[in-house]
Amino acid sequence: MIVGLDARDIRFPTSRHMHGSDAMNPDPDYSCAYVTLEMSAGEQSGNGLTFTIGRGNDLCVAAIEGLGSHLIGRSLDEFEEDLGLVSRLLLNDSQYRWLGPEKGVVHLAAAALINAVWDALAKRAGKPLWRYVSDMSPERMVSAIDFRHIADYLPREEALERLTAQQSGKAARIETLMQDGYPAYTTSAGWIGYTDEEIVRRLKAAYAEGWRHFKIKVGGDLQGDLARCKLFRDTLGSDVRLSVDANQVWNVAEAVKAIKAMAPYDIYWVEEPTSPDDVLGHKAIADQVSPILLATGEHAHNRVMFKQFLQAQAIGFCQIDACRLAGVNEVIAVMMMADKAGIPVCPHAGGVGLCEYVQHLSMIDYVCISGTMEGRVIEHAAHLHQHFRNPIEIREGRYIAPTAPGYSVDLWPQSIADHEFPQGKEWAKEMAS
Amino acid sequence: MIVGLDARDIRFPTSRHMHGSDAMNPDPDYSCAYVTLEMSAGEQSGNGLTFTIGRGNDLCVAAIEGLGSHLIGRSLDEFEEDLGLVSRLLLNDSQYRWLGPEKGVVHLAAAALINAVWDALAKRAGKPLWRYVSDMSPERMVSAIDFRHIADYLPREEALERLTAQQSGKAARIETLMQDGYPAYTTSAGWIGYTDEEIVRRLKAAYAEGWRHFKIKVGGDLQGDLARCKLFRDTLGSDVRLSVDANQVWNVAEAVKAIKAMAPYDIYWVEEPTSPDDVLGHKAIADQVSPILLATGEHAHNRVMFKQFLQAQAIGFCQIDACRLAGVNEVIAVMMMADKAGIPVCPHAGGVGLCEYVQHLSMIDYVCISGTMEGRVIEHAAHLHQHFRNPIEIREGRYIAPTAPGYSVDLWPQSIADHEFPQGKEWAKEMAS
Repeated sequence: MIVGLDARDIRFPTSRHMHGSDAMNPDPDYSCAYVTLEMSAGEQSGNGLTFTIGRGNDLCVAAIEGLGSHLIGRSLDEFEEDLGLVSRLLLNDSQYRWLGPEKGVVHLAAAALINAVWDALAKRAGKPLWRYVSDMSPERMVSAIDFRHIADYLPREEALERLTAQQSGKAARIETLMQDGYPAYTTSAGWIGYTDEEIVRRLKAAYAEGWRHFKIKVGGDLQGDLARCKLFRDTLGSDVRLSVDANQVWNVAEAVKAIKAMAPYDIYWVEEPTSPDDVLGHKAIADQVSPILLATGEHAHNRVMFKQFLQAQAIGFCQIDACRLAGVNEVIAVMMMADKAGIPVCPHAGGVGLCEYVQHLSMIDYVCISGTMEGRVIEHAAHLHQHFRNPIEIREGRYIAPTAPGYSVDLWPQSIADHEFPQGKEWAKEMAS
Repeated sequence: MIVGLDARDIRFPTSRHMHGSDAMNPDPDYSCAYVTLEMSAGEQSGNGLTFTIGRGNDLCVAAIEGLGSHLIGRSLDEFEEDLGLVSRLLLNDSQYRWLGPEKGVVHLAAAALINAVWDALAKRAGKPLWRYVSDMSPERMVSAIDFRHIADYLPREEALERLTAQQSGKAARIETLMQDGYPAYTTSAGWIGYTDEEIVRRLKAAYAEGWRHFKIKVGGDLQGDLARCKLFRDTLGSDVRLSVDANQVWNVAEAVKAIKAMAPYDIYWVEEPTSPDDVLGHKAIADQVSPILLATGEHAHNRVMFKQFLQAQAIGFCQIDACRLAGVNEVIAVMMMADKAGIPVCPHAGGVGLCEYVQHLSMIDYVCISGTMEGRVIEHAAHLHQHFRNPIEIREGRYIAPTAPGYSVDLWPQSIADHEFPQGKEWAKEMAS
């Protein structure tokens, strides 16, 4: 039984070196609100986190503590028996719901808690999360989904049919994953705060490691953005993939102008060209820059937003986030809608623990939902993995399928102690300097 | 100069009597995060609040305290000189912004702070807020608007032209407002937790007071909803207006079915038929239930959402909220887009202080933006006004134009002391019982 929660404010002073800097977020301190389920003696616990970039991480911790009261007194058996329960308990508290609904701090907090429960369930089953879900029947997977407000696009019966149709090849796909892993791209070379020299050095190093798909940050002044694209092609040539990420800074007209100017550099996708709330704006941009495709999702806050991006065919790539959406339950709903729309799922990662999380989600998409890796790729950023007990493993630009039980976001106790804000050792150092 | 902030968690135990109950929110405790700007000696202060329905109000208080640090050390002169400054300072903190962006707890907190600054500016000018804004030049009003992500629909130049075109009749419209006030409708008779007898009693009493436009809550089982509509028409006949509010509970198909079934009861608008994030869903419903019109907005979290509802003509009434949107600045942007779309602004009110707030906004819409009250109406709910120093005044179903300087949300000190959560007297009583 869940008898309590331990929620911590963990922050890493990444802004010191401009890791993670982009046009909208010049100085992020990659952070997470980290929660551990406190269980009755001898029972399996679970950990979950939600990612933020610094100030306000405390709000997520407080929301986890408040909202988490709905889990106290519940047993893992209850959650195992009814996979939708955890999501219903946390998203339907009407007073907390008012603060969203289903968005912002409260939704981020719900994600940490929901993921912690899935982590505990997978650990208890002795399986990595992707495998725990892959081994479920279609009926069980569907029972995790809340169809409210998406049934007009994906009715329950159709979801069940789609999963059932993918049953046959599952064993072979699991085999493939275990052998070959899952394709990835890297963001680590092109943060906006890096100098040209730094970018060239990082691009070459990444190429040598086996990376063939890169993303760089744009959205500064247009001449600078074009120079950065040129630098990329001058350094690595035309045989590698280049995606760009504008982090929401453009209006519709600005986006169209900038994307057309970048077209000669052969752009695989343009990410977050404008407000993440603007379905119609994305659609307007997409229509004008075709055949270049748009990608968005790291700030698309729930299944209803993704439903619309997909219905409108406003995006060419669906970038789910493991904790912007309300955990595994809502991610499954979105991946199923993306499959219906024929749009590849390419998760947002980086930050703290997002790579650890989303590898499982892409693998679930491959084994259970879309049945293909075609056009799909998981984001990779190289920092902070050393703080996790079971960090991601990358080989030749691919994620190796995780084998440790759970959802892979257990932090080392020392990392927690050192980075707890504001009392941890690293922050004491930071404040002294 | 702003030297500090005093933020309080104020809650009223309204769930005791089912005031405010609806299909999504069965037991709200109407609450607000209330902020007072602490000023240098002798300078004008200001108050702002953001409305919630109970649990999580503490998160808004914490967000006000964190985000509010951007106001410390700033003077009212700076905000007066650059009306967009307060909004830029509070919405562009990239670390806090990550938690939305521009939605949820952080946006609600920003609203309280932004409104507090406008309250201080209006008080210093010795004018009620609506008059303070009405007396501005079009150039100054436009300077309050952040055009990012809405310029594709409303460019700055067009906003300026539209306001300039309304300059001529302003004095006469101010005169009209002072004499006749602004039309309203009442929600106080039809909360979902009320018995039929209670509803009939309240409808008759409200009719006797001069009300001719009513809203009742629906979204329970359909037969019950239809019975409630019939009860309304049986009680008050066909010469009064009836709107219904489903508070988001339906899927698209459910909404269409329910609304068609209610059509014989002559429904003026159907409010929140589905998820407030679902622009395309509203559009699909609107197309199928025409000529019945939809209304939404109390959970539409920013100007980008409203832009889309208006672009798509998915709504027939635009229900701005004074503190779901980021304060006066963002509300002006939305009211200007609604005017361009030809959609009447009918603000969401009730709760704590929302009636006090939005009367000013509808009056600004009338004097400066739309120039008409045609088809427009301010929501009214009868409770909690006694806690405000300058409560709304209603006569014959109309809001009387407020004359006290400021934005009308100053709470009485005793009301603050009694209802502060959890230590106030009223909560001590509540917890003892």
